[in-house]
Amino acid sequence: MKTILAIDPGYDRCGIAILKKDNTKETLVYSCCITTHKKDPLSVRLASLYKAINDIIATYKPDVLAVETLFVSVNKKTVIAVAEARGVILLIGGVHTMPVIELSPQDVKIALTGAGNATKQQVQKMVSLSLGIDTSQKIDDELDAIAVGFAASSKLKLIEIGLY
Amino acid sequence: MKTILAIDPGYDRCGIAILKKDNTKETLVYSCCITTHKKDPLSVRLASLYKAINDIIATYKPDVLAVETLFVSVNKKTVIAVAEARGVILLIGGVHTMPVIELSPQDVKIALTGAGNATKQQVQKMVSLSLGIDTSQKIDDELDAIAVGFAASSKLKLIEIGLY
Repeated sequence: MKTILAIDPGYDRCGIAILKKDNTKETLVYSCCITTHKKDPLSVRLASLYKAINDIIATYKPDVLAVETLFVSVNKKTVIAVAEARGVILLIGGVHTMPVIELSPQDVKIALTGAGNATKQQVQKMVSLSLGIDTSQKIDDELDAIAVGFAASSKLKLIEIGLY
Repeated sequence: MKTILAIDPGYDRCGIAILKKDNTKETLVYSCCITTHKKDPLSVRLASLYKAINDIIATYKPDVLAVETLFVSVNKKTVIAVAEARGVILLIGGVHTMPVIELSPQDVKIALTGAGNATKQQVQKMVSLSLGIDTSQKIDDELDAIAVGFAASSKLKLIEIGLY
């Protein structure tokens, strides 16, 4: 049994999921979306993100950290600030000496649907089916984190059988 | 008297300077370049950077954090990782509730030389003259941090007289 902390990085909204995986299946234990105050300076927002994630780690004691990678492409304006939030998340992995699994958005889509060009809706549908959860009550960032956690679990299986 | 912690962000090499400023002048108290192990995963490198900077804060108890801003332009390959290191540095400002002064490379050049298009050599020459230090024994990242600290001190003066 392994507990995975999966994160969809963001400084404004940061998706969080805790999944437990055993040899046969994944179970969603917890998910949320951490939000920070828009009026605070980025340093204060990052400190509140850091505290919130550390509190979740203290509660769920995850073994592995899974984080989505970031590309300089879509929104150049926010990519730097999202990378800064991602730095805080990677730091948390380092501070807690947790192995970090990094997954590209395409890795996540392939793990869930088998297709690297799946739509957000298709990925969310597979999240719902694979984990047996009602996704209608969860917001996008939370669902993204759950998808990252599921993909990380698949990758862990491949690592266990020596494929990575 | 204010103590400024000035940082030239990096995950591989991170320039650090501690300057004291009174009403008439700036004094360089300490500078160094923190390096992290290339073979470590980024999460571990960020954790060692975090620890090193926190140790420096415990020693010098700075009042203000000054950090250079980052633009998505020159090296797309490393800009994400440098932004991630910068996130860790901003976090430190937030955790220690220090005011953060962010300066663009151009702000720094103007503060030191009066010209936004000054060369690295011209900036370093002015660092040497303004602070009365021998720059030949210091490496580039360290000198960049010292320049950031000097520029932050100038900006603090402008803030004090109500110009910001």
